[in-house]
Amino acid sequence: MVAQREQGGVILAGAGPGDPDLLTVAVLREMSRADVILHDTLVSPEVLALAGPQARLIETGKTGFGPSMKQENISEMIVFFAQRGYRVLRLKSGDPGLFGRLGEELDALDAAGIAWRVLPGITAASAAAASLGQSLTERGRNRELRLITGHDAQGLAEQDWAALARPGAVAAIYMGKRAARFVQGRLMMHGASPATPACVVENASRADQAIRAATLATLPQIAAEAKGPAVILLGLAPRDARIALKEAAL
Amino acid sequence: MVAQREQGGVILAGAGPGDPDLLTVAVLREMSRADVILHDTLVSPEVLALAGPQARLIETGKTGFGPSMKQENISEMIVFFAQRGYRVLRLKSGDPGLFGRLGEELDALDAAGIAWRVLPGITAASAAAASLGQSLTERGRNRELRLITGHDAQGLAEQDWAALARPGAVAAIYMGKRAARFVQGRLMMHGASPATPACVVENASRADQAIRAATLATLPQIAAEAKGPAVILLGLAPRDARIALKEAAL
Ligand SMILES: C[S@@+](CC[C@H](N)C(=O)[O-])C[C@H]1O[C@@H](n2cnc3c(N)ncnc32)[C@H](O)[C@@H]1O
Ligand SMILES: C[S@@+](CC[C@H](N)C(=O)[O-])C[C@H]1O[C@@H](n2cnc3c(N)ncnc32)[C@H](O)[C@@H]1O
Repeated sequence: MVAQREQGGVILAGAGPGDPDLLTVAVLREMSRADVILHDTLVSPEVLALAGPQARLIETGKTGFGPSMKQENISEMIVFFAQRGYRVLRLKSGDPGLFGRLGEELDALDAAGIAWRVLPGITAASAAAASLGQSLTERGRNRELRLITGHDAQGLAEQDWAALARPGAVAAIYMGKRAARFVQGRLMMHGASPATPACVVENASRADQAIRAATLATLPQIAAEAKGPAVILLGLAPRDARIALKEAAL
Repeated sequence: MVAQREQGGVILAGAGPGDPDLLTVAVLREMSRADVILHDTLVSPEVLALAGPQARLIETGKTGFGPSMKQENISEMIVFFAQRGYRVLRLKSGDPGLFGRLGEELDALDAAGIAWRVLPGITAASAAAASLGQSLTERGRNRELRLITGHDAQGLAEQDWAALARPGAVAAIYMGKRAARFVQGRLMMHGASPATPACVVENASRADQAIRAATLATLPQIAAEAKGPAVILLGLAPRDARIALKEAAL
């Protein structure tokens, strides 16, 4: 670690969905400068490999701190390192403002009088839709995209099902794997067709990305096949992939 | 321009909200390699400055092609250059899958049998929320984020107002400046409090970024102050900015 300074600042940044090519230039730079990088479990090893040699990497997920670190403890740790003068990078998967507990960490930093800056990131839904070759919004189909969570602090998350059940509606469901059967039931109850297209994009943007096409009828089974992080795109089907080429070819 | 090849491929990519630091590594690389870059008017000059010396830049907005190029003509031009063997980069502001007519361009490429790849980008809402120091979702407040448009092909866009009018709801309104009074009226009709927080983030991430706090009551006047591209964040107020520092300080 470098010598301590007066008071460190904290950058809270989005690492994107996993492909290091989807890091922003700003976050890549901060990774090379940070003394301490506190990262979510979902931040990929390929991204973490871009940290500078001086950086101490701390996973705020499972390893080293018991089964799962409490949000309170994560916030305390961020404050701890910043107060000791280290340049702290708090790295979250995707965009830090989406389902990432950003508000609680900023509250803790404000309470401690520590300077911070938030850097946005590519969220899983954007990466997943790009991989499908589909636009998230489309004239005549949907003028709204909903980003929802399958689970919240109370368990399975209730949503505005009537609107989601309308033909043409598009939504990205985060943390939706185990909620897939619940979502299916609620949408059908509100009149959605069992033939409504959907897909499950696992490990979006990563080498092991898997795109699984489904319908509302098959969604629970298809979602259960995903082992890694997955986002469900309701209302979208993969574009015929015959012509879409991988980077190697382009 | 470089010598023609057999058949070019097309990268359709998001340039983010304007700050070149918010380009992804992938898009930065494609900018240096492209022979032809067809870009929206909203793609910033700072981003375009990163194009390689060989690149021909074509704005698909106002200049050079009459008042505003038709979507059909843009698609034709993309196909034209790709068929002549050029490496084409189609650069859209923000994320290409959000309010960017991506589907129509992919349809045209598929019809012409041209290889393509989509690269996601940082959307305006993510950048705006990062600048505010606010999370777009928050436990106990909102488990859903809506990205909506103020205007669509039919004019002012109807939305699911009842849900948006609920306390705690958060939505980002794109192309919402001229729709602000309509949005205000609809939300109040559905019972939203005139004190509902909102803000208007103009030129998010750019040197001339302006954040204007509003309430639902003042939204139309505040939105009218924005001259550049602006995203309205319904349900969010800027975090007290005393402690948040600019990059210079961090
Ligand atoms: C705690 S949330 C964080 C979301 C993140 N802040 C974002 O903007 O993408 C975790 C969920 O994000 C989704 N997710 C994150 N990375 C993903 C990836 N590479 N592929 C698919 N889904 C992903 C999954 O739904 C996962 O359960
Ligand atoms: C045609 S839409 C394209 C949206 C873009 N694809 C995205 O994901 O950000 C144009 C609208 O995006 C929003 N926008 C784009 N760039 C912006 C910026 N730098 N600051 C604020 N709003 C922006 C404005 O609402 C603008 O009217």
